[in-house]
Amino acid sequence: MLNRLYIINGPNLNLLHARDKEIYGRDSWSDIQMKLDKIAEKSSIKIDYFQSNWEGAIVDQLHRVYELECVESYISGDTNLKINKDCGIILNAGALSHTSYAIRDAIEMIKIPTIEVHLSNTYSREEFRHKSVLSDVCVGQITGFKGTSYILGMYAFIEYWNNYMNK
Amino acid sequence: MLNRLYIINGPNLNLLHARDKEIYGRDSWSDIQMKLDKIAEKSSIKIDYFQSNWEGAIVDQLHRVYELECVESYISGDTNLKINKDCGIILNAGALSHTSYAIRDAIEMIKIPTIEVHLSNTYSREEFRHKSVLSDVCVGQITGFKGTSYILGMYAFIEYWNNYMNK
Amino acid sequence: MLNRLYIINGPNLNLLHARDKEIYGRDSWSDIQMKLDKIAEKSSIKIDYFQSNWEGAIVDQLHRVYELECVESYISGDTNLKINKDCGIILNAGALSHTSYAIRDAIEMIKIPTIEVHLSNTYSREEFRHKSVLSDVCVGQITGFKGTSYILGMYAFIEYWNNYMNK
Amino acid sequence: MLNRLYIINGPNLNLLHARDKEIYGRDSWSDIQMKLDKIAEKSSIKIDYFQSNWEGAIVDQLHRVYELECVESYISGDTNLKINKDCGIILNAGALSHTSYAIRDAIEMIKIPTIEVHLSNTYSREEFRHKSVLSDVCVGQITGFKGTSYILGMYAFIEYWNNYMNK
Amino acid sequence: MLNRLYIINGPNLNLLHARDKEIYGRDSWSDIQMKLDKIAEKSSIKIDYFQSNWEGAIVDQLHRVYELECVESYISGDTNLKINKDCGIILNAGALSHTSYAIRDAIEMIKIPTIEVHLSNTYSREEFRHKSVLSDVCVGQITGFKGTSYILGMYAFIEYWNNYMNK
Amino acid sequence: MLNRLYIINGPNLNLLHARDKEIYGRDSWSDIQMKLDKIAEKSSIKIDYFQSNWEGAIVDQLHRVYELECVESYISGDTNLKINKDCGIILNAGALSHTSYAIRDAIEMIKIPTIEVHLSNTYSREEFRHKSVLSDVCVGQITGFKGTSYILGMYAFIEYWNNYMNK
Amino acid sequence: MLNRLYIINGPNLNLLHARDKEIYGRDSWSDIQMKLDKIAEKSSIKIDYFQSNWEGAIVDQLHRVYELECVESYISGDTNLKINKDCGIILNAGALSHTSYAIRDAIEMIKIPTIEVHLSNTYSREEFRHKSVLSDVCVGQITGFKGTSYILGMYAFIEYWNNYMNK
Amino acid sequence: MLNRLYIINGPNLNLLHARDKEIYGRDSWSDIQMKLDKIAEKSSIKIDYFQSNWEGAIVDQLHRVYELECVESYISGDTNLKINKDCGIILNAGALSHTSYAIRDAIEMIKIPTIEVHLSNTYSREEFRHKSVLSDVCVGQITGFKGTSYILGMYAFIEYWNNYMNK
Amino acid sequence: MLNRLYIINGPNLNLLHARDKEIYGRDSWSDIQMKLDKIAEKSSIKIDYFQSNWEGAIVDQLHRVYELECVESYISGDTNLKINKDCGIILNAGALSHTSYAIRDAIEMIKIPTIEVHLSNTYSREEFRHKSVLSDVCVGQITGFKGTSYILGMYAFIEYWNNYMNK
Amino acid sequence: MLNRLYIINGPNLNLLHARDKEIYGRDSWSDIQMKLDKIAEKSSIKIDYFQSNWEGAIVDQLHRVYELECVESYISGDTNLKINKDCGIILNAGALSHTSYAIRDAIEMIKIPTIEVHLSNTYSREEFRHKSVLSDVCVGQITGFKGTSYILGMYAFIEYWNNYMNK
Amino acid sequence: MLNRLYIINGPNLNLLHARDKEIYGRDSWSDIQMKLDKIAEKSSIKIDYFQSNWEGAIVDQLHRVYELECVESYISGDTNLKINKDCGIILNAGALSHTSYAIRDAIEMIKIPTIEVHLSNTYSREEFRHKSVLSDVCVGQITGFKGTSYILGMYAFIEYWNNYMNK
Amino acid sequence: MLNRLYIINGPNLNLLHARDKEIYGRDSWSDIQMKLDKIAEKSSIKIDYFQSNWEGAIVDQLHRVYELECVESYISGDTNLKINKDCGIILNAGALSHTSYAIRDAIEMIKIPTIEVHLSNTYSREEFRHKSVLSDVCVGQITGFKGTSYILGMYAFIEYWNNYMNK
Repeated sequence: MLNRLYIINGPNLNLLHARDKEIYGRDSWSDIQMKLDKIAEKSSIKIDYFQSNWEGAIVDQLHRVYELECVESYISGDTNLKINKDCGIILNAGALSHTSYAIRDAIEMIKIPTIEVHLSNTYSREEFRHKSVLSDVCVGQITGFKGTSYILGMYAFIEYWNNYMNK
Repeated sequence: MLNRLYIINGPNLNLLHARDKEIYGRDSWSDIQMKLDKIAEKSSIKIDYFQSNWEGAIVDQLHRVYELECVESYISGDTNLKINKDCGIILNAGALSHTSYAIRDAIEMIKIPTIEVHLSNTYSREEFRHKSVLSDVCVGQITGFKGTSYILGMYAFIEYWNNYMNK
Repeated sequence: MLNRLYIINGPNLNLLHARDKEIYGRDSWSDIQMKLDKIAEKSSIKIDYFQSNWEGAIVDQLHRVYELECVESYISGDTNLKINKDCGIILNAGALSHTSYAIRDAIEMIKIPTIEVHLSNTYSREEFRHKSVLSDVCVGQITGFKGTSYILGMYAFIEYWNNYMNK
Repeated sequence: MLNRLYIINGPNLNLLHARDKEIYGRDSWSDIQMKLDKIAEKSSIKIDYFQSNWEGAIVDQLHRVYELECVESYISGDTNLKINKDCGIILNAGALSHTSYAIRDAIEMIKIPTIEVHLSNTYSREEFRHKSVLSDVCVGQITGFKGTSYILGMYAFIEYWNNYMNK
Repeated sequence: MLNRLYIINGPNLNLLHARDKEIYGRDSWSDIQMKLDKIAEKSSIKIDYFQSNWEGAIVDQLHRVYELECVESYISGDTNLKINKDCGIILNAGALSHTSYAIRDAIEMIKIPTIEVHLSNTYSREEFRHKSVLSDVCVGQITGFKGTSYILGMYAFIEYWNNYMNK
Repeated sequence: MLNRLYIINGPNLNLLHARDKEIYGRDSWSDIQMKLDKIAEKSSIKIDYFQSNWEGAIVDQLHRVYELECVESYISGDTNLKINKDCGIILNAGALSHTSYAIRDAIEMIKIPTIEVHLSNTYSREEFRHKSVLSDVCVGQITGFKGTSYILGMYAFIEYWNNYMNK
Repeated sequence: MLNRLYIINGPNLNLLHARDKEIYGRDSWSDIQMKLDKIAEKSSIKIDYFQSNWEGAIVDQLHRVYELECVESYISGDTNLKINKDCGIILNAGALSHTSYAIRDAIEMIKIPTIEVHLSNTYSREEFRHKSVLSDVCVGQITGFKGTSYILGMYAFIEYWNNYMNK
Repeated sequence: MLNRLYIINGPNLNLLHARDKEIYGRDSWSDIQMKLDKIAEKSSIKIDYFQSNWEGAIVDQLHRVYELECVESYISGDTNLKINKDCGIILNAGALSHTSYAIRDAIEMIKIPTIEVHLSNTYSREEFRHKSVLSDVCVGQITGFKGTSYILGMYAFIEYWNNYMNK
Repeated sequence: MLNRLYIINGPNLNLLHARDKEIYGRDSWSDIQMKLDKIAEKSSIKIDYFQSNWEGAIVDQLHRVYELECVESYISGDTNLKINKDCGIILNAGALSHTSYAIRDAIEMIKIPTIEVHLSNTYSREEFRHKSVLSDVCVGQITGFKGTSYILGMYAFIEYWNNYMNK
Repeated sequence: MLNRLYIINGPNLNLLHARDKEIYGRDSWSDIQMKLDKIAEKSSIKIDYFQSNWEGAIVDQLHRVYELECVESYISGDTNLKINKDCGIILNAGALSHTSYAIRDAIEMIKIPTIEVHLSNTYSREEFRHKSVLSDVCVGQITGFKGTSYILGMYAFIEYWNNYMNK
Repeated sequence: MLNRLYIINGPNLNLLHARDKEIYGRDSWSDIQMKLDKIAEKSSIKIDYFQSNWEGAIVDQLHRVYELECVESYISGDTNLKINKDCGIILNAGALSHTSYAIRDAIEMIKIPTIEVHLSNTYSREEFRHKSVLSDVCVGQITGFKGTSYILGMYAFIEYWNNYMNK
Repeated sequence: MLNRLYIINGPNLNLLHARDKEIYGRDSWSDIQMKLDKIAEKSSIKIDYFQSNWEGAIVDQLHRVYELECVESYISGDTNLKINKDCGIILNAGALSHTSYAIRDAIEMIKIPTIEVHLSNTYSREEFRHKSVLSDVCVGQITGFKGTSYILGMYAFIEYWNNYMNK
């Protein structure tokens, strides 16, 4: 059973309410968070929220998640560290999605399954938003459903973990 | 309330059971369909399934959906045809996603909201799979969750319609 | 004297009335066809109309035109088949114009002069519409005059045949 | 009713009789002009011919057309100048079509509808002739019918104006 | 011992006799087929011929081959379907070779060894013919020997199967 | 009747037994040569083998072939040298295939028909192996059948010469 | 009347005195600041200076500017926040100009007019400096006048605001 | 002290009042010129205005400036001609900025410092306007402030000359 | 025997004495002309010099050359105009070499053999100077010998005409 | 004699023990540091270690190194600051190597010789790792020797300083 | 323990003393060799030196190394040849590094670990030197330390072999 | 006075008489050599001829030229070797011109002025012949005058040396 979900938001997502509503949707971040909390409660998932405009802070946070989730193997002294199977990450790296190989390396390294989400349909916007350098090291991508993208991300974890990861 | 959902599959998805399980998942198509039907029943949605290896057949099917969903305006003689707001399309055009401008034109033309889904994470595979020519005329994209991608597609309709389309 | 003209339309042109009027014009296909028939009658031209959303069907149709127009040489047993000089094709391959090398090969092979037409000004739209793979094996191209493009296509045949082909 | 048509030819079109007949056709420019004059007479159109090998002269000529066609609004003192709806331009900018952003800017600025014509099928010649920088600011393009391209240009104006511009 | 060979031809190969003899050779398709049948008889191979101008039909045919060749494993109820080792495909997808990822996916999926053949030397023709999207999922490629390309394809199967596949 | 065949191998083919067997096949070069000699004997063909790791040596060898095969015209004093119609070259230029315009020029210059062969399927390997600069000046290409590629090359000469060159 | 100007400097601009004087000019940053302060005083503008080598800090600062300048609308409870018309930003993002889509998103989002300045003529230096990803979301760009670029930036605000923004 | 300033405008800038006001601003050219004259008077600068739609005329004008400004060294018979330090050029080459290497060569050759200005923000318009071939041989670039761009150009000369050129 | 040579210089070559001596050499244009005149006298060649900074003027001049050199065929009434075999053009189009398709078309059209010369080694300068759009319609190219390039151009005509054109 | 060496590590190098051992080697960072310290002791070098996942922090650290190493010239009041010749930097910027122009500018600006090292052979990994934007402003690059890369970096300083820098 | 090291130099390295000292350093090749011999003696390594301007000779030499180092397995008749673990290659292929796929294939084939070295920092020179086609089949790369690059290469072998290869 | 000229020919130029006369001209190499010898005799120049199909041999020959021409400085013990000013090289590297960085490095290194010649107009042939990697390290280029290219090369040396090198 999935029990810890880390939701990590990148640059400018803290000012969601100031952005173009046509593109990013009517919901403020607290609207979205409220919905996510409701689902979390129903599914007994603990969500950890994190937002930063700083690439380095996001890398650090990914490291922190890694350390939290393989703590037991530290204790047991197992040198081949094992990751807790029942956790996951939902990542919206914002504009950093298109350039940050540092975040990419961190995702790949920590081996905790990560779902990439975007509020807007990045494929119908500027050319530079069509390519995410994170996509191929994530489990999958959910793009374009505004606030609902995060909710689908949660469902993805719940359903996908049950069907494909924990068997 | 959403009441008709058209699920359209492109080339080779009829032989899902023969494809590489690492990439496409363990589920056969009938496994996936069973799960979709269950959700549909709960949510009072009628699903219409269609699969073809033929690009032309998919374009025809998109036209047929269009005609079914604006039939009332035909009757009323309204020349500015109106689309039933409570329907949607989930489309996995398979390999045609990367080249078919004909399917793209059809989606754009019929104005019925369409969700693009892919079983595999197309971004971690061959270069030619990284670009879909359909993405920017769809509502959004769900990629990489194997059979679960379709289920998330259904949730997307249910949630997104409620939150963003019918208001 | 020109006596048989084949007008071949590709994907989505059957739903002309549903497309964006700004781009494709106010005329429905039957409006256009009526005008074409009037000119045909005045000029003693028989028009054969064909539309399909299927690339293969268009290739087949081009083959059929070929067989119809070189039937006499079949009878005479002439192995170097000759094409009837007084026929031509007006082709709007729609979105297939940008990718279908199969249609291109068919045009090149059957040696019946073909005029490429487009309703919209393809050069002021998306990047992918700027290049037609058919243009260099056609006689010429008429682009951007909405329904009038077809009418100009007919005039092109009438004038061009008289001036350049039958001499 | 259309009453003034400006036909503007770019570099080397004054020496049409010296160019490759396979590519540019048998007609000298005076042959073409004679045919155009005949149609003009029948349709009560006044044609103004202009040719130059100089890019600057073509830009100047486009400005002159602009000044001629909005002369009345000058008189009335209307600062939002209005263009006479019943005029148009047929432009064959020759080799300048592929590089002249100055001509492009002039076309866009003067807002008099312009039809781009080419004698040869530019798409079956050298790579550099495949792209015209003027196409997307013109109404449409007629390419490859040799001298007939201009005649089709006239028909385009007559038909297109009646059907799409003056309504 | 090889006993079933599927020869699949794509668009325009049905009209071989109409194409440019310099490029495609003097042989009509029935000439080629007669030679293939002779070799087949000598080598106790049953050949199945298929031609279509339709991409979808070729994908369907590849699926049909798959179903024919793994019929026994259906019967035995073996869920890991096994392909008959003694069969193969010779595929000339014509112009579809350069664009059809759907055919490519089908070849890769059915796991029946496929040999790509071309009549003409595609590398000395137009740029767009230099790249086949099928090559890397086929066993090998034979290009440029006109009708003889198919005969070499048959020899390839006979020799290659004996030397590399059945050991 | 074909009577002299020159088989020319480029860099690293002398160490075939050291290369990756998955890619290049189980056969050592002497295994392949034995099979070729057997076919040669049956068909009364004299084979001349040559291998070098040096680009210059391969160019020199192509010149030597040229001189051998037009010796008679030297004697007769005919300044328009004629090439013996019954000879050919099978060339596997190895890694030089992708860069050597000098070898390409030599092939083009000597006018002795040349077949390009490759042991491995170069199209399913590194990007740089996808393009051979020799292909368009050769008769055709046979790629991916390991040692069998050479045998098919011999068959190609025997069949192709009979069908297309000596008529 | 303009009353608050935010001058934001990116990486390495704190060490201006250490950089190549040929390229960046003789002035230290304090020299430049002194001149800016003099103009500010004369024009009753309050300048707020900020420098950071950290992309995230610059994004944060842009957010802070946003919050300062729309504070009144917070108070009035107007959900459509309004930006104070009399403020502006001069931004020299240094090397981040060429890659930071996060800064770009922030500029676009906060809707406070921003002027991009560069000390050096970025167009006569390395290729990677020729493209700024910020330019198209700024009001304009001033490049190459060394320390004077900032002074022109101030004049730009004063003149441009008076002429184009406040009317 | 700066005493002669040459302002050179390229194609279509003579019809500024006809262009898109959103992009080019409300000011007519005479509005702009009036403001420039006022600053010139205050700063004891003589301005010389020149506009042409002809590339050659702009090159000629640049030569003329060169000859005017080095006339004294002609008299003194100094073969290493010297340019008057107190003059400068403000150049808006319009659409020629993107293609004219002839203008570029002239700027580089005459060694009179030149400032490139643009009315519109060229970086937020069509792709072809993003690259000026003149930028790297000019002192600097001022882009996007509509009529104010010229005024900033004047300030640039006054300030930059004092600070960087005459020391 | 060669008797008329047209030397045509493009933009900025009139100010040769002002350009960088390292790149363009010590000779002024009159120095070069003096040397050319000497050779012309010795070889009984009449040289016609022309320089312009205007692309259109160069096209016009090429037309004038054409008219001068085919004057006799005008008289004889021969509609297939013949060019005097004993004339030629030396063309240094300066910066226009890299962009002017109008000049290129003129050269190709008039069929008078043209030699392209450059003072500097264009290949060791900026990237944009590496490609001349005129080269492939000229007889040959002489680049990098400063003033001597023109002298070699004259020798080229004298020798090449004798050896290759007049036989 | 070299006496201060700054070793700076970029993102994710703090979690070296968690990364793929095939690619990054068996050594943890403390293993590497122990070896480096041993060599440092033998060679009387003081090493200063720094690691950060933050680009800005690395730029700041480079500035700090600069300030430490030119402190004396500050004291002496020499405005042309001099860098201590006996110091150096070993930099492994991790994933930032491929994008950070800010780090590049800092290296170039501080003029302290820097050696770029990488644990893995970046050239045999993903395409985006093949290009470092730092390489051309560093002294040299050592790539692919896992932990040994740093040790070679130290030897490089010791040997290179003695042979090339201090003479 | 490492006991045989092959140092292979490519084109122009025999004339090191004639090359640009700024780029290649002050050391002649015999200076470098003396230093290498000293280290070799201390570490009981036998060095074999080889230089050639000929690509083929370098390929041959790589083959020779292969044969020397697997001679024992020849004797034992082991068909899976084994390479002596204690040998290595230092390769500076000079200008061939950027184009020679033949050398690349040889390195990959012989499976003897190879270190790529360059005297100059190839990344701060011409564009074509930025990419080596050998890098990804070598162990690692050492670039830019002039003669010291070879010495570091030796240290690399000694350290890397001890730490990573022989365990 | 120029006294030694080295003429170096690359691959396939030894078989000039076998190549396409349309492209390479009627002259055999001995015809060309005879003409060169005549000019040499008149101008007291000793010519040294060299041809090879081997890249390495050409590099070696360039080294040999270097050693011959700086022999005196060897004797005088001058470590800064001086090249005899009165020698030069005419190089036609054939197909190697497009790829050989080794030859390029040799030319650059030996510092003996080199003239690049080509028989054919390489710019009107295949794309790959449009770029020579040698051009920017040669004095200049003479292309397209068939055998006369070499003669012009000799004149170039005689004239250019007198005018530009020996002063």
